[in-house]
Amino acid sequence: MTAYDQLSRKFKRLHALQEAAGILSWDMSTVMPSGGAEARTEQLATLDVVCHETLTDPAMDELFDRASAEATGLSDWAQANLTEMRRRWLHATALESDLVEALSKACKRCEMIWREARPKSDFAAVLPAMTEVLNLTRQAAAAKSEKLGCSLYDALLDEYEPGGSSARIDTVFADLADFLPGFLDDVLARQGQQTATLPLAGPFPRAQQEALGRRLMAAVGFDFDHGRLDVSLHPFCGGVPDDVRITTRYDEDDFMTALMGVLHETGHAMYERGLPQDWRLQPVGEARGMAMHESQSLMVEMQACRSAEFVSFLAPLAREAFGGSGPAWEADNLLRHYNAVKPDFIRVDADEVTYPAHVILRYRLEKALIAGEMELEALPDEWNRGIKGLLGIAPPEDRLGCLQDIHWYDGAWGYFPTYTLGAMTAAQLFAAAKRARPEIPAALGRGDFAPLMGWLREHVHAQASSAGFETILERASGEALNPEIFKAHLKARYLS
Amino acid sequence: MTAYDQLSRKFKRLHALQEAAGILSWDMSTVMPSGGAEARTEQLATLDVVCHETLTDPAMDELFDRASAEATGLSDWAQANLTEMRRRWLHATALESDLVEALSKACKRCEMIWREARPKSDFAAVLPAMTEVLNLTRQAAAAKSEKLGCSLYDALLDEYEPGGSSARIDTVFADLADFLPGFLDDVLARQGQQTATLPLAGPFPRAQQEALGRRLMAAVGFDFDHGRLDVSLHPFCGGVPDDVRITTRYDEDDFMTALMGVLHETGHAMYERGLPQDWRLQPVGEARGMAMHESQSLMVEMQACRSAEFVSFLAPLAREAFGGSGPAWEADNLLRHYNAVKPDFIRVDADEVTYPAHVILRYRLEKALIAGEMELEALPDEWNRGIKGLLGIAPPEDRLGCLQDIHWYDGAWGYFPTYTLGAMTAAQLFAAAKRARPEIPAALGRGDFAPLMGWLREHVHAQASSAGFETILERASGEALNPEIFKAHLKARYLS
Repeated sequence: MTAYDQLSRKFKRLHALQEAAGILSWDMSTVMPSGGAEARTEQLATLDVVCHETLTDPAMDELFDRASAEATGLSDWAQANLTEMRRRWLHATALESDLVEALSKACKRCEMIWREARPKSDFAAVLPAMTEVLNLTRQAAAAKSEKLGCSLYDALLDEYEPGGSSARIDTVFADLADFLPGFLDDVLARQGQQTATLPLAGPFPRAQQEALGRRLMAAVGFDFDHGRLDVSLHPFCGGVPDDVRITTRYDEDDFMTALMGVLHETGHAMYERGLPQDWRLQPVGEARGMAMHESQSLMVEMQACRSAEFVSFLAPLAREAFGGSGPAWEADNLLRHYNAVKPDFIRVDADEVTYPAHVILRYRLEKALIAGEMELEALPDEWNRGIKGLLGIAPPEDRLGCLQDIHWYDGAWGYFPTYTLGAMTAAQLFAAAKRARPEIPAALGRGDFAPLMGWLREHVHAQASSAGFETILERASGEALNPEIFKAHLKARYLS
Repeated sequence: MTAYDQLSRKFKRLHALQEAAGILSWDMSTVMPSGGAEARTEQLATLDVVCHETLTDPAMDELFDRASAEATGLSDWAQANLTEMRRRWLHATALESDLVEALSKACKRCEMIWREARPKSDFAAVLPAMTEVLNLTRQAAAAKSEKLGCSLYDALLDEYEPGGSSARIDTVFADLADFLPGFLDDVLARQGQQTATLPLAGPFPRAQQEALGRRLMAAVGFDFDHGRLDVSLHPFCGGVPDDVRITTRYDEDDFMTALMGVLHETGHAMYERGLPQDWRLQPVGEARGMAMHESQSLMVEMQACRSAEFVSFLAPLAREAFGGSGPAWEADNLLRHYNAVKPDFIRVDADEVTYPAHVILRYRLEKALIAGEMELEALPDEWNRGIKGLLGIAPPEDRLGCLQDIHWYDGAWGYFPTYTLGAMTAAQLFAAAKRARPEIPAALGRGDFAPLMGWLREHVHAQASSAGFETILERASGEALNPEIFKAHLKARYLS
């Protein structure tokens, strides 16, 4: 067996174990009785240890050396696979086990304190634990940056967005940050002149919400022989490519949020499901990173399903599902609901226009903190100043400000920018898809996703990790990530 | 760290991985979409390989040597734990990996052919594949018998019934085989003179069946914070002690079968749940073997829930659940249903009186086949002759005879006797429990399982694998396995 084949076997085992962990995590969030938590945590931790040992096995060094020497004989996909294997191996071996353990404990501790501190808006209470998380995260970043040959921040970003570059992100975010405040003013002014949005009267029974959600999932192309829809506290897309499991939660006073949530997760699921069968359980066969993943969920939710065409398809189905009638249930009113813009403090409730401001703020702050250019004590003030500059509002309390998201307290530094990179990528890919297949908007108006999904499967899903994010995007859309396309999308939707 | 502690860590990891596999298997049988099967098989196979590698790690030899030298300083439970560790290790290391693979492939192949051959009653079609399974199973038995120092058959039995002895089984089964034919005649004669059993008219909606099942599970003591009830094609008890997952299947024309099935699995679940918290993930903390496990399911189903006392508690609940009324829904009629005896060809449908005959037949045949005292070609004839001798009927076709059970075709040799050992043990433990707590029958009449379950928890569940099956039984009941107690139970229930 060649060294590449040996590596390939090791990674196949690793991925199969990670898939097992994926299903166990799904179970934990959906059907597990509460009393099973401790045993489950042990099962997942054990799988983690076994995976880590597999990756950091000393025999890997020599295998990678030998595989590099052989690499000229490999196909393009196998070469890309080797690159991805090496990237994972570098991440796994960069940190001493003491640091991994200290970081894991610090994050658990900090997250627990944060859960108490958030409702009380008590940033001071979590500051010491968060300082420890930040210090250890910077140590980890330093160790990884040495292995990967990049900045501290980029070393963290690389875990979520392989090959991601903060220099690139700085440029595109600066462009957006310039554009957004003025644009937001225009949108708010225009909204003020529009027909008032009529409220939709509930209740909306859960069974009907679920049935409508399943109908729309099927329209998008979700294959229920290879996946499930369930309920969890925090919606997610989990499982494995051949058994993709999405979740939602229902509110009987509001069907619109869960419905778009289901469509969002369906976008993630379509990506997973469309990954190439030939490269299952190999690193190159996985999704290209969090930005591309988010682009696929936002493609379905934001680009396709909040379009006037799709909402005209949705309106009669919603009336039928909930027995609605009258002007509130007409497509134009539903569209106003789905495209309402309102600056607010909370990221997860934000609309498409204000969402990037939340992300840009977090990105700038976490970059400064990781670079050591800002003290953690200054976070609440810097947060409030930053959001005021971007959205014109400042939170009265830290629970509506720097305490709102779990990410930093739980150790997820370098993740935030992928949300807005995903939104921009979605707009760029949707524009490219419509150029290639002009029938897409009309098809969405009939609930027919086949033209859009066919194009995405070929140009995004089936590409998996065979090339970098920017390369896949360029090949699919004809150019590098271009903020103008996202801005054009926003202008077309909110100002025309 | 002592060698014992090191072994203990290794087994903890092993058990956590096996627990993970347990949950994944539950998922596969209950909620997994069909398209997930291939990926799941890979995940489970990978866990299997990792577990096998952990157990057969060459470093184990020395650890066991050192641990034996240290063993005098260990507590009784730790010593028993070491014994159990060694037993598992001997089983895992006894077979060369070539044989493990050949056996696994032969069983898969044979099982597939059997699935086609059974409905056609075509034993000849499966004979070559079954011959291969038997030959390889005998090789495995030979390798294990050398390690364990016992007969071929006992080496196979030991996997299901640790320390089990065919010499002991021969004796108790011979006693039963003598008793049963005459007893069966008496029961049938008596049944012929009884009031006719009135049919119960359905349909019995699934939701009501499930609600009644859950109510009775709760009465037995099933803790829904630590377990679930779901649906699967073949009912089973799975999951892990802190998250026990039982399943059933519903037939809307018959609620009685699923209900007793739920109670049977609840008995298994109570055992798992009652295993000692202090020894989780250690071999000594696991259930004592299949006979003791079956004794706990039959304790609930056969001893407790088919008693006149419990059925008098059940009858009004059943009437309420299904809107039943009139004499068919009175307790005495339900009891006649639940205690009807009728010789038939199929083991899984057999009643309490005829079931042992099915088991004794299979035990005798598989023992002769493993010992090489019988040719596989003779199986259909020997089967038919044997069942005729025990039950007075002979199957007209092999699908009702030697082709009915999956066990042999799937490689499970040495399992069958545990069913009847379990039934006898259940009777013996129930008699002991009633002697110690005379209030048990009256409590069951009120749906109160606390006295019975309290006794079982102390004398059986909490004992886990701290001693051998016979020792636990003797300590709990005051004597070794005694067929007279089972016979007395049968006489009391069916002839008095």
